[in-house]
Amino acid sequence: MERFELLVKSARLPDGRTVDLAVKDGKIARLAPSVEGEAEYVVNADGKLLFPSFVNAHTHLSMTLFRGIGADLPLMDWLQKVIWPLEQRFVSPEFVYDGALLGILELIKSGCTLFLDMYFFEESVARACEETGVRGALGVGILDFPTKVASSADEYLEKVRRFASKFKNSPYVMPVVAPHAPYTCSPETLRRTRELADELGLYLHIHLSETENEVKQILSKYGKRPVELLDEIGFLDERVIAAHVVWTDEREREILRERKVSVAHCPESNLKLGSGVAPVPDYLKRGINVCLGTDGAASNDNLNLLEEASTCAKLHKGYLKDPTALTAPQVLKMATENGFKALGLKAGRIEEGYEADFILINPDVPEMQPLYDPVAQLIYSATSEAVDTVVCKGKVLMEKREVKVLDEEEVFKKARAWREKILRAL
Amino acid sequence: MERFELLVKSARLPDGRTVDLAVKDGKIARLAPSVEGEAEYVVNADGKLLFPSFVNAHTHLSMTLFRGIGADLPLMDWLQKVIWPLEQRFVSPEFVYDGALLGILELIKSGCTLFLDMYFFEESVARACEETGVRGALGVGILDFPTKVASSADEYLEKVRRFASKFKNSPYVMPVVAPHAPYTCSPETLRRTRELADELGLYLHIHLSETENEVKQILSKYGKRPVELLDEIGFLDERVIAAHVVWTDEREREILRERKVSVAHCPESNLKLGSGVAPVPDYLKRGINVCLGTDGAASNDNLNLLEEASTCAKLHKGYLKDPTALTAPQVLKMATENGFKALGLKAGRIEEGYEADFILINPDVPEMQPLYDPVAQLIYSATSEAVDTVVCKGKVLMEKREVKVLDEEEVFKKARAWREKILRAL
Repeated sequence: MERFELLVKSARLPDGRTVDLAVKDGKIARLAPSVEGEAEYVVNADGKLLFPSFVNAHTHLSMTLFRGIGADLPLMDWLQKVIWPLEQRFVSPEFVYDGALLGILELIKSGCTLFLDMYFFEESVARACEETGVRGALGVGILDFPTKVASSADEYLEKVRRFASKFKNSPYVMPVVAPHAPYTCSPETLRRTRELADELGLYLHIHLSETENEVKQILSKYGKRPVELLDEIGFLDERVIAAHVVWTDEREREILRERKVSVAHCPESNLKLGSGVAPVPDYLKRGINVCLGTDGAASNDNLNLLEEASTCAKLHKGYLKDPTALTAPQVLKMATENGFKALGLKAGRIEEGYEADFILINPDVPEMQPLYDPVAQLIYSATSEAVDTVVCKGKVLMEKREVKVLDEEEVFKKARAWREKILRAL
Repeated sequence: MERFELLVKSARLPDGRTVDLAVKDGKIARLAPSVEGEAEYVVNADGKLLFPSFVNAHTHLSMTLFRGIGADLPLMDWLQKVIWPLEQRFVSPEFVYDGALLGILELIKSGCTLFLDMYFFEESVARACEETGVRGALGVGILDFPTKVASSADEYLEKVRRFASKFKNSPYVMPVVAPHAPYTCSPETLRRTRELADELGLYLHIHLSETENEVKQILSKYGKRPVELLDEIGFLDERVIAAHVVWTDEREREILRERKVSVAHCPESNLKLGSGVAPVPDYLKRGINVCLGTDGAASNDNLNLLEEASTCAKLHKGYLKDPTALTAPQVLKMATENGFKALGLKAGRIEEGYEADFILINPDVPEMQPLYDPVAQLIYSATSEAVDTVVCKGKVLMEKREVKVLDEEEVFKKARAWREKILRAL
C-alpha cells in the first residue's frame, strides 16, 4: 500500500474529469481517476472543482492593519498625512507579525498560498508564514533614506544578507531583495541590490512605473525612462518581479520582454489610487510573464486575488472596448501559474510533479450555478465564498471554509487591539 | 407593550451608535438606543453593522440560467450565435420562473431587496417575487419585432396592461413599462409606451446609449442622438430609468438632468462587453440620480451588487486618474437610496418612516478587520460573505447567511436540470 501525506478523493477538473489526487513530499505525486493508498489525511472533494491556488504577486501584508483609513483622499495626502505618520508611530516587529496573521487569514480564505511581500521587519512576516504554512517571498523594502529598520544602503543590504541566511532553508519563506523603486533608490543602490541578489541567488522585487508622474521624474533626473534606466545598470533579468508597470513605451516593453522580467499587475490598486490602467493585453501578446497582485490592503482595500482576477478580466475589455481582449483562461493563468513561475516554482498546474498548491471550489453556491464553464465562472462569477478548501505544499490550510492553521477570533482580537491604539492617534 | 413585526436588537450604525430597530407595517417604526416591545420576530444583531439593502437597478434575472455560456466572445457572436438561439429554444414561463428563483437566491445572499427587471414572461418573475418576498419592478421587454410573448406593439402593450392590472396591489411586484431601446423600438412605439405609462401611472425602464455603435445608428437614422430623440417625443421624465447611458454628449447630459431621468449604471457589464465607461462622476456632479445595476448574469457574470459597487468606486478613479473621483459614501448611496428613489420608494435610509429594507453586515470577517470606516470597508473591502442578514419590507429573508425563503438545494436542482437540457443544445 503506497503511503501519501494527503489524498483528495473525487475532485472534478475544469474539463469534466473526476480524479483522485495524492501528495508526497509536498508535491502532486499521483493524479488519476482512482488512487489507492494510505494517507495521513483524506479530503473527500465530492465533486468540487480542483484548481491551482492563487499567487498574490505584490503586496504589503501587514498594512492590512491600516485598511480603511483615509479612504478617497488624494494620493499624496493619503501617504504624507495619514499612512507615513502612522507607520512612523506604530510599525514594529509585533505590529508586522499581527498584521501578517490577519493578512494570511484573508489570503487563505480567498484561496492564495504564495504572496510576494515588501515591508519592514520581514522576520515577523516570515514567522507568520512558518507558523501557518503559507508561502511568502519576503523582502525588506530598501530605500535611500533612513527608516525604522536601517539608515543606510549598507545597513539595508546587511539586513537582507542576514535574513537570507536565516531563512535559506525554510520550507515556506523565500527571501528576496526588494529595492523600493527607481525614484526612491539611486542607480548605485539599485546596482548593489542586483549584485547582492546575484551573490545570494535571490529574486528581486521592485515597484516600477506605477504613476505617470514618477516616470516624468526619472526622465527629468536621468534623461531616460525607468525601464531603460534599470536595464542600463544591468538590473533586469528573469529573476525580477516588477510591480504595477502601468506607464511604459514601446521600447520599454521590448526591454521587459527581452530580459524576461515578470510584471505583477495590480489593477484594483491602480484604479483606486488613480494611477491608470496597465497595458496588460499588450504585455501578454509580447510574451511577457504577467501575474497578479492586490498591493497592500490599505490601497485596494482587500487581499482578495479572486476579486482582482475578476476585475482584471473585465477591466481590459472595457478599457480597450474589446470583449475578447483578455480571456478567462488567460486571467486564471496570470492568477496562478504565472505567479509561481515568476518566483521559479514549479507550481500552478494540477499535474503530477508540480507542487501541491491547490484549491477546491464549491460549485453549489448561487454564483457558480448552473455550471457550464468552470474557468469562466470562477473568474467572472464566483466570490471567495466558493473557495472551500485550500492546500499549500500538501498541507490543508482550510477545509469547508474552516481555517485550520489560525484561530480567527484570536486574529481579530489582535486586530481590534491595534485599532484601539491607532484610533487614539488619528 | 407596543407590538412590532420585527425587532432588531443592538445593531451598529456606521457612525458608531448602537441602536434597536423596530418594524411596523413593513416600515422602520422606531430607531433608538433601546426599543422595548413585543415582536413577532427578534434578531439579535449583536453589534453587526446596519445598512440599507441594495437595489439592483437593471437586470434580466432569468438569464442567470445562461451564465457562463459563450464567455469572451465578440458581442455580436455572443448574441446572435449563442444567446438568441438559446432564448428562442428554451425561454418559457417555467424557464423564467426557475431562473428568477436562482437569481433571487443570489440577490438575497448579496444583500439586495429590490431589482428592476426586463425580460419575457414577467408573470413568472412576479410569482417568484411574491413567493420569496423580494421586491421586483418588472416589465416585459417591448420590441418592434415579434418574440415568444407578442408579435406587435398592440399585443405587447396589451400584455403590459394585463400584467399591471393583475399586480397593481401586489406588495412585492411593481409593474413597469419596458421598451427595450431606441434602436429596437420606433419613435411611435416609444411614444405609445410613454402614453401607457402615463395612463397607468407606471415607471419606464429602457436601455439607452449602451454602445457607441448604437448611438451612431440612431444618429444616422433620425439625425439626432438617442437622448435627444427620446426627449423630442416627450419620453423623458423623473419616472424613467435608463440603463447604461455610456455614450452621451454635453447636451444629452443636460437633458437627462433637466428631465430628472434616473441612470442605472452597470459598470461590470459595460466593461465585460467592451462597451466603455459611463461618465458617472460627471452625471453625479450635475445632480443626475445615478443608481447601480448588474445587468443580466450572462454578461457580468453575477448579480452581486456589492461587487458592482466596489468596481464602480475604483473604476472611475482609475479611468479619470483621480483618486477622489467618487467616494465610498457616494457609491453606497448609488447602490441603495438612489435605486429606491428611482422607483419612487421611500427607502434606502435607516430612518424612522422609511421602508424596512436593510441588511446586517458582519464585521468579524477578515476583509472588514480592523474596522475603521464601515462605509469605505463595505464598499472597497467586503465580499458578500459579510452580508449576514437581509430584511425586505420588515421580513427576514436571510439570517446568519441562511436563506429562509428558499430551499437552496431545490433551486440548484432545477438549475442543474436546465443545464442538462441546454448542454444538449450547445
